[in-house]
Amino acid sequence: MLKPESTIGILGGGQLGRMLAMAAARLGLRCHIYSPEADSCAFDVADAVTVAAYDDEAALARFAEAVDVVTYEFENVPAQTAAVLAAHREVQPDPQVLAKTQDRLIEKQAIAALGIATAPFRPVDSAIEAFAAAAALGVPAVLKTRRLGYDGKGQRMIGSADEAAMAFAALGEVPCILEGFVRFEREVSVVAARGVDGTVACFDLTENEHRDHILRRSIVPATASAALEQEAQRIAERIATAFDYVGVLAVEMFAVRDGAGEILVVNEIAPRVHNSGHWTIDGATVSQFEQHIRAVAGWPLGQPVRHGRVEMLNLIGSEVNDAARWLTAPGACVHLYRKGEARPGRKMGHITRILPG
Amino acid sequence: MLKPESTIGILGGGQLGRMLAMAAARLGLRCHIYSPEADSCAFDVADAVTVAAYDDEAALARFAEAVDVVTYEFENVPAQTAAVLAAHREVQPDPQVLAKTQDRLIEKQAIAALGIATAPFRPVDSAIEAFAAAAALGVPAVLKTRRLGYDGKGQRMIGSADEAAMAFAALGEVPCILEGFVRFEREVSVVAARGVDGTVACFDLTENEHRDHILRRSIVPATASAALEQEAQRIAERIATAFDYVGVLAVEMFAVRDGAGEILVVNEIAPRVHNSGHWTIDGATVSQFEQHIRAVAGWPLGQPVRHGRVEMLNLIGSEVNDAARWLTAPGACVHLYRKGEARPGRKMGHITRILPG
Repeated sequence: MLKPESTIGILGGGQLGRMLAMAAARLGLRCHIYSPEADSCAFDVADAVTVAAYDDEAALARFAEAVDVVTYEFENVPAQTAAVLAAHREVQPDPQVLAKTQDRLIEKQAIAALGIATAPFRPVDSAIEAFAAAAALGVPAVLKTRRLGYDGKGQRMIGSADEAAMAFAALGEVPCILEGFVRFEREVSVVAARGVDGTVACFDLTENEHRDHILRRSIVPATASAALEQEAQRIAERIATAFDYVGVLAVEMFAVRDGAGEILVVNEIAPRVHNSGHWTIDGATVSQFEQHIRAVAGWPLGQPVRHGRVEMLNLIGSEVNDAARWLTAPGACVHLYRKGEARPGRKMGHITRILPG
Repeated sequence: MLKPESTIGILGGGQLGRMLAMAAARLGLRCHIYSPEADSCAFDVADAVTVAAYDDEAALARFAEAVDVVTYEFENVPAQTAAVLAAHREVQPDPQVLAKTQDRLIEKQAIAALGIATAPFRPVDSAIEAFAAAAALGVPAVLKTRRLGYDGKGQRMIGSADEAAMAFAALGEVPCILEGFVRFEREVSVVAARGVDGTVACFDLTENEHRDHILRRSIVPATASAALEQEAQRIAERIATAFDYVGVLAVEMFAVRDGAGEILVVNEIAPRVHNSGHWTIDGATVSQFEQHIRAVAGWPLGQPVRHGRVEMLNLIGSEVNDAARWLTAPGACVHLYRKGEARPGRKMGHITRILPG
């Protein structure tokens, strides 16, 4: 358990690091942000910063020595980076989790091994395997690179076995996974925090709408029966516990029609604070960012209470120019990330609305 | 109206500056904090900092040139400091307001000139005048220095005219004001924001409990009729408008029994964000800190919506050691200011609770 006024080291200087640093500051903790980008938006609210590459081992060692615990805002931390940090300081969540979640195949296998439903999947390491996998799973399907990729990058929809082989070439002939397409009623997610003592605290089930593979809107509570919500939270808890995870993780799921009811199929895990949990800053007494900071600091998790119905809208690219009209909307909370140029697809900010009823 | 991603300069590095900087960061604005103390807690969340004395005119000029607007977290900004800053950059609220509120006599005269009730008062510049004022106003009364003083510092309760003369000596024979003691039912405050366009937005009337002259607890809504709350907000709006104020100000008032009802007597004005408005961070969709930042940036004020009943508890001195038990209380929000040593009387943090009902 870190002493009051300790320093949290955060790898990554984007908006997630920025919101983590602000949550830490509420609790009187300092943050030291490590990022290769000199103009990282998280630097604005950090007590100390390091500008260095993720493979600069001397800088990583100095950073680790300067802080009391290390965490990260993104899941694609290179294994060697994590290893260098861990040699000097406690890293939470444990880097071995990254090894699981950085590879879509290993992640899916780990989830399936827990008896939790996923989309059907096959490893694909060649054009021939792509063809065969599509023939076996049926189409439509989605071919994804096993590593990297976010917001729809590194994936292709597949309409035929021939297309699968071509998509494998288009994705660069890197190791892939073919996933059967899941016909879902809606997308939901559970943001869960797990403390060092093994306690798990889940936020309410969140319903998510994507456009062009980017989250546009989250709404809480999700349209779901109490039983389905409990099942979703049990799934997140089982995964967090099986991974011996410390911190916040998000589990994205599909709600799929099954006779008269619905069942859940896990889509993917994000071993970090997650866009679908941004509503918790304004919509709950303790945010996902604070829960993550508490967990990695070894502090007890909070018991968040939600403020009624909550909606979160991302401001993507030029949508940030709409922020002005939200400034005067009753019950609206405006968040801007100081990201500079409003490039297409870039997450520039978000709006939280506390809705009546 | 400042452009997005502009820089707010804040004079003062305490917890109010810290919370202002965090509110600015939500809106994508940067902060540059100016403070004479190298270990200022507001520095943790600032994009840039200056450590220099308030009379270092070269440092003040550089600071003003480096930011897009200047504001302050405390009302006792020396007049010369404000003048130097204003020569280089827009300062909001206008320093002429400080001249009024830094002197208890001028402040009371300005309030009375608006036809708003205050405690009866007399200027006291000598022991003889202290004696005469106490004889005229009656006892008990309170002798206060006209300038400086906060949290009960620089004031003495007076039980007799003789005591008034002695208290004048004890306070250092500086210009004073004798205020008649007001027998009140409760202490309340209005935190009001006024934008550059003259719009005023008041937070809900807040009921405050002090101990040893330090705010211990605020509760919202206050025990008050709708008519009394409206009257309190009208008073705050009239003062803000008369002072041509831009930013957040707090008006502390006494609710005094008057026949079957209650009337309001203004106690004092704080031309800044105020401890009795800390509940707005967690208890409303837009906080007092964000309203202040919006106002000084020339942005439109928000329309805050309150989340039910809200209680704010200050953690003073060693009470900060109780913070741990609040971490796990359902619906509790913990704020720690990273103030270091828990000296008696020092504001170390606060708790906000969203209460059922």
